[in-house]
Amino acid sequence: MYTSPLLPREKVFRDPVHNYIHVEHKVILDLINTTEFQRLRRIKQLGTSSFTFHGAEHTRFTHSLGVYELTRQICNNFQQNYPSKHPGDGLWNDDENRLVALCAALLHDIGHGAYSHTFEHIFGTNHEHITTEILTSPETEVNQVLSSVAPDFPEAVASVIDHTYPNPQVVQMISSQIDADRMDYLLRDAYNTGTKYGLFDVTRILRVMRPYAQGIAFESDGMHAVEDYIICRFQMYQQVYFHPVSRGMEVVLAHLLQRAKYLYEHHQLGELTPTLLIPFFESNFSLHDYLNLDDGVLNTYFIYWREDPDDALRDLAHRFLDRKPFKSVTYSQETRELIPKMRELIGAAGFNPDYYSALNDSYDLPYDAYDPSSKEPKTQIEIMAEDGTLNELSTLSMLVAAIAGRSTGDERFYFPKEMLAKQDDSLFSPIYDQFQRYIHNGALSFPRKDADDE
Amino acid sequence: MYTSPLLPREKVFRDPVHNYIHVEHKVILDLINTTEFQRLRRIKQLGTSSFTFHGAEHTRFTHSLGVYELTRQICNNFQQNYPSKHPGDGLWNDDENRLVALCAALLHDIGHGAYSHTFEHIFGTNHEHITTEILTSPETEVNQVLSSVAPDFPEAVASVIDHTYPNPQVVQMISSQIDADRMDYLLRDAYNTGTKYGLFDVTRILRVMRPYAQGIAFESDGMHAVEDYIICRFQMYQQVYFHPVSRGMEVVLAHLLQRAKYLYEHHQLGELTPTLLIPFFESNFSLHDYLNLDDGVLNTYFIYWREDPDDALRDLAHRFLDRKPFKSVTYSQETRELIPKMRELIGAAGFNPDYYSALNDSYDLPYDAYDPSSKEPKTQIEIMAEDGTLNELSTLSMLVAAIAGRSTGDERFYFPKEMLAKQDDSLFSPIYDQFQRYIHNGALSFPRKDADDE
Amino acid sequence: MYTSPLLPREKVFRDPVHNYIHVEHKVILDLINTTEFQRLRRIKQLGTSSFTFHGAEHTRFTHSLGVYELTRQICNNFQQNYPSKHPGDGLWNDDENRLVALCAALLHDIGHGAYSHTFEHIFGTNHEHITTEILTSPETEVNQVLSSVAPDFPEAVASVIDHTYPNPQVVQMISSQIDADRMDYLLRDAYNTGTKYGLFDVTRILRVMRPYAQGIAFESDGMHAVEDYIICRFQMYQQVYFHPVSRGMEVVLAHLLQRAKYLYEHHQLGELTPTLLIPFFESNFSLHDYLNLDDGVLNTYFIYWREDPDDALRDLAHRFLDRKPFKSVTYSQETRELIPKMRELIGAAGFNPDYYSALNDSYDLPYDAYDPSSKEPKTQIEIMAEDGTLNELSTLSMLVAAIAGRSTGDERFYFPKEMLAKQDDSLFSPIYDQFQRYIHNGALSFPRKDADDE
Amino acid sequence: MYTSPLLPREKVFRDPVHNYIHVEHKVILDLINTTEFQRLRRIKQLGTSSFTFHGAEHTRFTHSLGVYELTRQICNNFQQNYPSKHPGDGLWNDDENRLVALCAALLHDIGHGAYSHTFEHIFGTNHEHITTEILTSPETEVNQVLSSVAPDFPEAVASVIDHTYPNPQVVQMISSQIDADRMDYLLRDAYNTGTKYGLFDVTRILRVMRPYAQGIAFESDGMHAVEDYIICRFQMYQQVYFHPVSRGMEVVLAHLLQRAKYLYEHHQLGELTPTLLIPFFESNFSLHDYLNLDDGVLNTYFIYWREDPDDALRDLAHRFLDRKPFKSVTYSQETRELIPKMRELIGAAGFNPDYYSALNDSYDLPYDAYDPSSKEPKTQIEIMAEDGTLNELSTLSMLVAAIAGRSTGDERFYFPKEMLAKQDDSLFSPIYDQFQRYIHNGALSFPRKDADDE
Repeated sequence: MYTSPLLPREKVFRDPVHNYIHVEHKVILDLINTTEFQRLRRIKQLGTSSFTFHGAEHTRFTHSLGVYELTRQICNNFQQNYPSKHPGDGLWNDDENRLVALCAALLHDIGHGAYSHTFEHIFGTNHEHITTEILTSPETEVNQVLSSVAPDFPEAVASVIDHTYPNPQVVQMISSQIDADRMDYLLRDAYNTGTKYGLFDVTRILRVMRPYAQGIAFESDGMHAVEDYIICRFQMYQQVYFHPVSRGMEVVLAHLLQRAKYLYEHHQLGELTPTLLIPFFESNFSLHDYLNLDDGVLNTYFIYWREDPDDALRDLAHRFLDRKPFKSVTYSQETRELIPKMRELIGAAGFNPDYYSALNDSYDLPYDAYDPSSKEPKTQIEIMAEDGTLNELSTLSMLVAAIAGRSTGDERFYFPKEMLAKQDDSLFSPIYDQFQRYIHNGALSFPRKDADDE
Repeated sequence: MYTSPLLPREKVFRDPVHNYIHVEHKVILDLINTTEFQRLRRIKQLGTSSFTFHGAEHTRFTHSLGVYELTRQICNNFQQNYPSKHPGDGLWNDDENRLVALCAALLHDIGHGAYSHTFEHIFGTNHEHITTEILTSPETEVNQVLSSVAPDFPEAVASVIDHTYPNPQVVQMISSQIDADRMDYLLRDAYNTGTKYGLFDVTRILRVMRPYAQGIAFESDGMHAVEDYIICRFQMYQQVYFHPVSRGMEVVLAHLLQRAKYLYEHHQLGELTPTLLIPFFESNFSLHDYLNLDDGVLNTYFIYWREDPDDALRDLAHRFLDRKPFKSVTYSQETRELIPKMRELIGAAGFNPDYYSALNDSYDLPYDAYDPSSKEPKTQIEIMAEDGTLNELSTLSMLVAAIAGRSTGDERFYFPKEMLAKQDDSLFSPIYDQFQRYIHNGALSFPRKDADDE
Repeated sequence: MYTSPLLPREKVFRDPVHNYIHVEHKVILDLINTTEFQRLRRIKQLGTSSFTFHGAEHTRFTHSLGVYELTRQICNNFQQNYPSKHPGDGLWNDDENRLVALCAALLHDIGHGAYSHTFEHIFGTNHEHITTEILTSPETEVNQVLSSVAPDFPEAVASVIDHTYPNPQVVQMISSQIDADRMDYLLRDAYNTGTKYGLFDVTRILRVMRPYAQGIAFESDGMHAVEDYIICRFQMYQQVYFHPVSRGMEVVLAHLLQRAKYLYEHHQLGELTPTLLIPFFESNFSLHDYLNLDDGVLNTYFIYWREDPDDALRDLAHRFLDRKPFKSVTYSQETRELIPKMRELIGAAGFNPDYYSALNDSYDLPYDAYDPSSKEPKTQIEIMAEDGTLNELSTLSMLVAAIAGRSTGDERFYFPKEMLAKQDDSLFSPIYDQFQRYIHNGALSFPRKDADDE
Repeated sequence: MYTSPLLPREKVFRDPVHNYIHVEHKVILDLINTTEFQRLRRIKQLGTSSFTFHGAEHTRFTHSLGVYELTRQICNNFQQNYPSKHPGDGLWNDDENRLVALCAALLHDIGHGAYSHTFEHIFGTNHEHITTEILTSPETEVNQVLSSVAPDFPEAVASVIDHTYPNPQVVQMISSQIDADRMDYLLRDAYNTGTKYGLFDVTRILRVMRPYAQGIAFESDGMHAVEDYIICRFQMYQQVYFHPVSRGMEVVLAHLLQRAKYLYEHHQLGELTPTLLIPFFESNFSLHDYLNLDDGVLNTYFIYWREDPDDALRDLAHRFLDRKPFKSVTYSQETRELIPKMRELIGAAGFNPDYYSALNDSYDLPYDAYDPSSKEPKTQIEIMAEDGTLNELSTLSMLVAAIAGRSTGDERFYFPKEMLAKQDDSLFSPIYDQFQRYIHNGALSFPRKDADDE
């Protein structure tokens, strides 16, 4: 059993989404004060989405506090209403699990880096592995704080994050289809973007959550609140996370980093040295190198590159810093074959198509009733009737059934906006129009026009 | 063309839902000040729902102002962004229609009475006919104010409400699947109940509404906002409007009025005279009689009847005033046949089953793609692509498709709570349990337990 | 020590202001279900204010649940953070006091009647005495439920409400300058009127409240939150509670009841019998008679009187039901002497000045640092420094000091609106203008124009 | 008269505070898309305050859009309700002024740099001069866009910002005691910190604003809304902007930059070159150099310096990046003389007192009725009675009078937290306690404890 001294008096942090973040244990406060956790202040939660939704400037620091707070509230509910009476009864033995759940919630994103997914794709980093490393490597402050609880505590916390911790409630609090992570980011992203889609009834969901032998279930009178959460999540993906303009900025970013890497490898990068990136260009980086990176560091080098002698690097850096996203068009089976022609025309117009065009798709499974092949924990949502019977959510809800198991999203071809403006272009526009005529029947045919969609 | 002088300065009313209600025309202010409109202050918007959701104490007065305000905003949008350039272009000729739309919006509920649906059922009144009568009968103040605009103005306003007004945009503003009436009540009921389900993005819906030849369509980038509104509406019906406990109070109310009518007809009503109800007992009432009724008048007579010598009347009055709803159980094809046995047991326990039990169903069509048999205006929701093509909503939205055309609700058998408590009852409980074992697969299997559901 | 069984599972009520009302004890649920408590559903919290702020339709029922919930949260804070270690240490001995505090909070308004203050003024009733009677008289359901806890429990609860209960924290929770009652009504009235003035930071105030020997103090880091509450309260009085138009309706109501009483006493009331009011006309009413009254009962008799043969009664009933408030003008020392002349002109115009004019003042002490003459409990707000030193709020806050001990409000002369419209009136308007020229320097010179102020 | 083409269709940006930002003119959209304006995305609005209020991560980009939107709404009000009929009538001649007001609003902060005030203090930059330069220097994109309207348009916009533009309404919209700038930042900072103090009734203030000959006045029925805004502003300064912990981080930042400058000047800076800062170390920077800086660039060099060989630089960089604020104590006339002794002890403990201690004061004038010596535009707030008479706000409001003309804030001595922890320190703690005993009577004696105040 892991324990940590309580603070002499509970400490609270004011939070716009949850009102207060309540910190009770010294170990939580110490974790917040580590250099690795403070780094999260310098990494935006939504990456390039803030180019489309200007209010979405919040960071992974704020989100991590929120996930911690929701987990704390779930633990409180379980402890007060479902205390375990004897081992193995599927109820909640708080003493064993509370501390490990709280630390895992706080630290679940600690390994995220600047512009996470794009950076990982180019440089082969993996934020999940790095999370584990930060928790378990003796060189980090996080590990030192965790080890002060017990020598094996860092491993225990890490095992929650990679789903091997034995208690299924703890694992599902942090990682399931309706976990503290997803609940916080939906609420927080909705709050900061100013969209309304993410606003589900979190108080009620917390109230109807309950432990059972295999993990966490939801009482049947909260079925509609859970259903509403699934719809909210679906809407946020369709309307915010997959917005084609944010993806147009991601494409610029990916090509910019790729070009820089290419130039470095060919000794053609200008004289302003991107010191903290060199280990990544050389594929030889330490955890320390990784932890030195953040959004601002990358942006600083982009400012360097905005004046680089290489035309493509300079231009792509300008497009990213000064928000000039690529434009896009969805493609389908029928129009896919026109893409090589498009790339050819882009090249003919003086743009290297490898850096100035891209395919980008964006898919999410809004709700997955059951995926036997997944190595993830069993994630389907169970509704518990008064007599204890469990029913999987999509068997009870027509709405959830309608979207369960279907991946939604779209496939887009990205290209420079200039292609549409060029006067002398007699070919691009007609092909583009051919794409446009394609009848949309998928979800992302309806991007918001009340975001910055230019 | 109908005109009315503008007020010297626009007048505003503070509103918790829309922030301000803006009154520009003298005729609107005069209508608000009529005796018929002020009466709406004394009629609750949600009837017996406030017995379950205690915050829902708002009246039809407040709602009517809200419908007016949303209609005003729709007119502003149409006038600014889609002015008609020549007759018959399907765009918005404000001068002809604004005033008639505003008055129809304000007055669309003017004929509603106390505990509307239940009262109508017992006494054969019809709030739609009475609305028309209030608008067109020279004895009302409303008619006098409307007539000051033009002699045929009252008829024009009334024709909007019965869907015969020639301009389809005006008719659909007030009455369609996504009209000012529905939008206001969803927002207002959500605000006052404290539930979150009714909160859709009204600003964005107002922004994407646009006139076209056959009425009102929605621009395609607002598809998800419209989809979200349909889901909200569905959730409000499932969770608030159809709540089984509110219906348990409606059943008590209906039986109470029925019993009083029966006793009056048989000259057995006690000596306290329910003066204002007599014309209705005698099926011989004038518009003036109707306009004298409100929730408080009925409650006053219930207070009389709480001391009536007739046992059933006295008890039912007590159950209604002091909130003792009947309990209920859903029934299905299989369990329907047990109902006569239940009624028999209720009678054996000393309760007249005609007054102490009831069947009650509750169905709504959350979205109706098209109903060719309906005499209502064509109500399907059309999404307009950038090139002007129209697509019916459920062809674009998986979620709407999932619920379109399906009526949802449940059928319940109501009975006195005492039947479950009776010690000596060896039969009722087992039958009740049989009902309970019935496997729910419909929507209303999940009534909220965070309302007053006892 | 008083105890009551806990419910098998906590019951919650959805509330728009506090999100949830949590009911833990069976006795609380039973009290809510009494006929006396259910009656509060039929009495508006703000009386005639809803004629000015149309959203303010909430009742004393809803408010009473809110006061209960805030008291419950205060008790939780005291129990968790300031448990008494030994008798008389000024800390919180939950077991003794929690139940009595919760019941007193729930029932503090149980004696309120329809249009409370006006009715009391005319008929000599007193809602505080009636509250005590409802709690202690064996004929009420409330008394029966309370007595089930202990024979002396009703007296204990009543003693909290009349400030004689020995524990000062309990008394101050329910009745002090910053008690659960005031906090709930400010938040709830702000929510329902749609004004923003009442929105102070209740979460933070609850957090900084703490027991000490003489009652309740506030920790110093919450000084500004308490200051902000005092300002909110001041603003709500200035802007909502004292609105001259609501008072114009109160004047109509008072005169209407007065006229009816006069006519009854002189056997001139029409033939429609206001049955439930007779005991009050005859100054011979029982508690049972009192509990039969509510807003709807009075309104029902006003509907009778709207057709009474007496001109004044008929007209005043019409003015009240159909919202025709008297107009008003503030008067000062200088202009006071013109009032007899005004009354004379009103009489000359055919209005009986006893029923068609009135003086009305409206004063509140926004914060009272200390009033040695008061029989109320010591109510000054104490701020506790980290070392335990107490400082009275107005010594620390410039803002509170500015308004402390000053009564604010205005004195107004009310008269029929027709006096200003009369063409032939050569005298009234000039005098009215003389009043108007009076230079305002007091608070209520600035009535809102975004309410219905006509 | 300046004009700019309208966009084919109004463009909106979703905003969490104002719901929508409406862009009507092409020139506004072009300004938003300039490199200088996009740079504001990389500069936090509240600098070090986000170390205390973790939600306050919003940038000057978002704020600038908000100021633009409020200005647009003020212009709409003036144009619709107070159009000028003839020159010089003190009313609003929209055609002349709207475009210049909108551009000035959008660009008023364009010259702000990273960690603005601290940076300016160390490097002698001036954001107001730089704003003017950005507007008027032909090398900027902003200047090029503005010049497309008219050759003298950039100068016109700049003259609004330095208060020399002839139209007083336009100047006061952007810069007065109740301008679009202050209104947006109060609302936005309250929204993002999650505090409630900044929430005043902006809709109503916008409604009661009106032009008059000398600028902008407020109608008397909005007096209390204006009063409430002044109180909100006062509270935000006391509770958020002056928080001692944020200032403890500012002190660290200032000393860090000072140390780096010193080392550079003495050729002792480590080998990692802070390229973009060099021109500032050498006091020889261009506008281009200035526009390359942002929060992320400074943080990047702090990451370099966290590994610098210089002990002080390395440690201060760590304290800033990893959030280790200096602790503080307020001082007064009496305790001021103890400060040299404190510095001596700090030095004796091994900390260079020039870098490890500081005096910091923080004063604001919450409302300035009139300051004849100010070169700023006349800023007192005028309330206009119905007859056109003007009264200065503090003559009407007791609350505003209480704080008018008084500067509030405190003076603090900052030192390393380690001084309190040192076991062997026999002197520091007793002196510190002496400071602590000082009786607070000023405003900032009450820092929030629900922020991160460690």
